[in-house]
Amino acid sequence: METLSAGNKKIKNLQAYQRSAKDRREAGIFIAEGIKMFREAPADWIKEVYMTPDALDKISGARENSSAGEGAKSITDTGLPMYLVESEVFKRISDTRTPQGVLTVLKRPEYTLDGIISGISGHGKDVTADRSSGRIPLLLILENLQDPGNLGTILRVGEAAGVTGVIMSRGCVDIFNPKVIRSTMGSIYRMPFYIASDLAKTICELKKNGITTYAAHLKGANIYTDNDYRGATAFLIGNEGNGLTDEITALADRRVFIPMEGSVESLNAGISAAILSYEAHRQRKI
Amino acid sequence: METLSAGNKKIKNLQAYQRSAKDRREAGIFIAEGIKMFREAPADWIKEVYMTPDALDKISGARENSSAGEGAKSITDTGLPMYLVESEVFKRISDTRTPQGVLTVLKRPEYTLDGIISGISGHGKDVTADRSSGRIPLLLILENLQDPGNLGTILRVGEAAGVTGVIMSRGCVDIFNPKVIRSTMGSIYRMPFYIASDLAKTICELKKNGITTYAAHLKGANIYTDNDYRGATAFLIGNEGNGLTDEITALADRRVFIPMEGSVESLNAGISAAILSYEAHRQRKI
Repeated sequence: METLSAGNKKIKNLQAYQRSAKDRREAGIFIAEGIKMFREAPADWIKEVYMTPDALDKISGARENSSAGEGAKSITDTGLPMYLVESEVFKRISDTRTPQGVLTVLKRPEYTLDGIISGISGHGKDVTADRSSGRIPLLLILENLQDPGNLGTILRVGEAAGVTGVIMSRGCVDIFNPKVIRSTMGSIYRMPFYIASDLAKTICELKKNGITTYAAHLKGANIYTDNDYRGATAFLIGNEGNGLTDEITALADRRVFIPMEGSVESLNAGISAAILSYEAHRQRKI
Repeated sequence: METLSAGNKKIKNLQAYQRSAKDRREAGIFIAEGIKMFREAPADWIKEVYMTPDALDKISGARENSSAGEGAKSITDTGLPMYLVESEVFKRISDTRTPQGVLTVLKRPEYTLDGIISGISGHGKDVTADRSSGRIPLLLILENLQDPGNLGTILRVGEAAGVTGVIMSRGCVDIFNPKVIRSTMGSIYRMPFYIASDLAKTICELKKNGITTYAAHLKGANIYTDNDYRGATAFLIGNEGNGLTDEITALADRRVFIPMEGSVESLNAGISAAILSYEAHRQRKI
């Protein structure tokens, strides 16, 4: 296995990918750091893996000790392009303060709006292949969400609550931002998503397909628990500081609010997404 | 108004307070940064205010322009010890990257376990004075929570969901940590809290007082929506990585879990607290 020095072209490229959304986009890739993120990566998304010697030992050892070997990738005999990087060099390509010594370069998944509307789950499958496996859509639509931690959390809690897809306006933080990827804790591999070049048009498309849209709004017309989310449902969630724009709010079938006691003026976007999604989950299980 | 230089003893003290939980504790104070945190501070908690000239202009101007002046403190004629600090010096005493130029030093509130059990709201009132104003307790009990952002978020979403008090084990992150204070968005001023030197003993005390305790646990005995939280209720929430200890879990009346779809292994502590608290809120409003 090749050991790369700090001056290697690949190391320079990785530094650029960590820093620049444009460089990542042009290369058609994203980067996931950490052991868990490597283990959960769909095999056919992986392009390259970079590891410190320590991390390689750890992962190989874990594999040999695991009884079934399930979930653990066969490191040295997968045919994947793998590179060793000394820990001093690894620090330069890592986006974290305490790197785990594993960095995976992955190709970007592509989902269609059509697939997301059909509620067909992702998991790297061809989402247009089999409509029969569709679930009743439960979508989160995010307008101009700025905080990477919020977006990552929303993907994670969304997966947990049975959300079938996430739609983002162009003004949202880059979903392939390293901090977003990290905050998803692996949900980036499983949650279908779609970046809408024209969010208003996309919402109209959803409505045409029988999906009821609810705008989470401080001036909601009714409490979020007073609606029936057992049918095809989409929740619209706005920017952290400003909420949804008037234009997008006006498109929603209904404005709903999460009641707040005391003197709280608003809830964090991730928290709001969690409360709404789990209310839908609760209703669907009954 | 006195303008303080970088070498002033008060500036040195503030730097120590920002860094050290011990120094804050020994001084019996905590620090809140930002304009909103200054405006919402209970007047009788404030010990000192530090401002840049720009921030002073902004706050004074806002006051003169506001129709009612409500919520805006009369800056220069309150008799509060106020100090001007040039923005270069302010950076040294600020815990944030982009300081708003206002830093308030406050005395610590003190709540009794007895007051928290009675469900009497805080707001700087003497919590033992009037039991008749008690609400049905809805408590969050946190064991060894480590992330300041999580703790702050829990206080904020807790206030919004009608939580009447938060109890923390000694192993939790310092509630007066600057990042916790900031993340509360003002709820630190309104949410009664209690740090239990012996959490097990405190939980027994709650049970003796008729409060039903539910441990949020991945191996819960039933789904969180299957319990009745309209009576006096406490949710136990554990450490981010390890969850609740076996000792504390065993003390709970019931173990509950939040169902998770997909491959999600756990939810963030703040998200879990939000989902549980809002389920109690939903039930209590029906």
